[in-house]
Amino acid sequence: MTTDARYDIVAIGNAIVDVIAQADDVFLDEEQLVKGSMALIDAQRAQELYRDMGPAREISGGSGANTLAGASTLGQQCALIAQVADDQLGEVFAHDIRATGIDFDVPPLGKEPPTARCLIFVTPDAQRTMNTFLGASQFLPATAVHADLIASGAILYLEGYLWDADEPKAAMALGIDIARRNGRKVAFTLSDGFCVDRHRDEFADLIKSGKIDILFSNEDEIMSLAQIKDFDAAVDQTAAQVETLVVTRGENGAIALQNGTRFEVGAEPVDKIVDTTGAGDLFAAGFLSGYGEDRSMEDCLTIGAVAAAEVISHYGARPEADLKALVKQRLG
Amino acid sequence: MTTDARYDIVAIGNAIVDVIAQADDVFLDEEQLVKGSMALIDAQRAQELYRDMGPAREISGGSGANTLAGASTLGQQCALIAQVADDQLGEVFAHDIRATGIDFDVPPLGKEPPTARCLIFVTPDAQRTMNTFLGASQFLPATAVHADLIASGAILYLEGYLWDADEPKAAMALGIDIARRNGRKVAFTLSDGFCVDRHRDEFADLIKSGKIDILFSNEDEIMSLAQIKDFDAAVDQTAAQVETLVVTRGENGAIALQNGTRFEVGAEPVDKIVDTTGAGDLFAAGFLSGYGEDRSMEDCLTIGAVAAAEVISHYGARPEADLKALVKQRLG
Repeated sequence: MTTDARYDIVAIGNAIVDVIAQADDVFLDEEQLVKGSMALIDAQRAQELYRDMGPAREISGGSGANTLAGASTLGQQCALIAQVADDQLGEVFAHDIRATGIDFDVPPLGKEPPTARCLIFVTPDAQRTMNTFLGASQFLPATAVHADLIASGAILYLEGYLWDADEPKAAMALGIDIARRNGRKVAFTLSDGFCVDRHRDEFADLIKSGKIDILFSNEDEIMSLAQIKDFDAAVDQTAAQVETLVVTRGENGAIALQNGTRFEVGAEPVDKIVDTTGAGDLFAAGFLSGYGEDRSMEDCLTIGAVAAAEVISHYGARPEADLKALVKQRLG
Repeated sequence: MTTDARYDIVAIGNAIVDVIAQADDVFLDEEQLVKGSMALIDAQRAQELYRDMGPAREISGGSGANTLAGASTLGQQCALIAQVADDQLGEVFAHDIRATGIDFDVPPLGKEPPTARCLIFVTPDAQRTMNTFLGASQFLPATAVHADLIASGAILYLEGYLWDADEPKAAMALGIDIARRNGRKVAFTLSDGFCVDRHRDEFADLIKSGKIDILFSNEDEIMSLAQIKDFDAAVDQTAAQVETLVVTRGENGAIALQNGTRFEVGAEPVDKIVDTTGAGDLFAAGFLSGYGEDRSMEDCLTIGAVAAAEVISHYGARPEADLKALVKQRLG
């Protein structure tokens, strides 16, 4: 980094352990789950759905945390602000974040509500359908957002998902204010189409206000945000409101628009797509890593595509391979 | 099954959640870990080792439980006797067992000690090095071994690992007595070379006493048990003491000796060996499934090899693919 920042990226995100199982389309229908989406569920529904779920594996998740895990693996200095409970899943989440080299100092809340978990059903087409019980994560207090930490990060990264609960939303708003006062960049991901539906006006206001420098989105989200069914028109409308807009398009690659200029890359090849969970999170990780190293927009997009390709080749939303080596192999 | 048994297999085993991370040989050296082995660790060492461990994934394990998971996937009716604590990892273990179709009715102990976990380091050569904190699992009481449950299983399956703690050892001895009184088969796995070292005399006495009908072993274990460095001589010595002896030999396949006749199969091909955790457990699952269906010894060994090949192709010691379909594809 060429800035005076101690951290390349500071993120405020949900602290979630993913519970990942295989399922078929019949199961999704029976449970009335919308394929590819993220639904919020309460404790009772979480219990019922878990009872009906096949054997699972637990892997730390959380959108912003996944992005930091990728960025850290790519050599970025990162810190996370997120809320776990004082329980075993909280220990798992905290361990995995710290073991990835990320600073994480938010003390756990009490035993109840427990650490958040996301029940993820992966269908044979590698699509993931997510059901999140937010637990402790929805009580991330604004007091966890320390001004000196935010000020020490070149980029503040935020999940749209945080808008789903009052306390984290307030924490995020505080974070944005501190970052802007300190001349830091603010990056934001729209997270999910239904999340955009739930908070469209507030997201639109936030973007229009000029508080977001880098906006991450996929095709559904950008069209939902703009309420325009034409992809290019939706992109153009939003691109006029942010310095840098990044839109991922799955197998069709990704685009970025920066100050009126459009950049585009194709998707990176994957031998076998196993589980698309974390594709967007890792794309953001790769993009931000390139951005932090002052790389070209094409390179930023390519690094994003490399990181996304790795994470969809296995179960779980955190990288398993040496992303740095993969990027070096791809870009030299 | 041709018997009157309600269950094909009832197992007494450890209830363990595996915590699986990648590591290199330097790490194993620094932590003084013996590659390929299973070491028992206390709570403090578990905490220290976990702190030094890379980001991990949690997947239910336990040797006997893994074997049942494989056998259940292959269509066998199974029940497990194992001890979890009243905590999140205990819930994970119980969920995964039941979600695999296995009956599991042992109530959790209290909160402390917590559910057992096994810290597994997988090196780039796909070898696994295991460090088990037994927690609640070492307090499996003999009262959990219900006579009617044992009597209702055609085969009682036991882990050598259970010999490492007094209560489960007593539970296992009781289980063997009940099974024999009811004319059921008793299958036993030697589990691990160091485990054989710790309990060689008792294992040898148990086998010589004629209480074991089917003995599972690998090359190290059978030579350690017999205290003979010549593989064939070690096999011959032990084969004389059990009705059926099964010895797995990694990439060299496996052999069985039954009433003086020797059977042999090669290893099944694997595209890429990722993590050898559970190879022996799943071999036993496949073998016992064939055995329960009165298949030929060659078929039993082949089904074992197919199940083992599947489990070493991914992280974790429980099957991820449809083993029944794989066996049908292989044997018709």
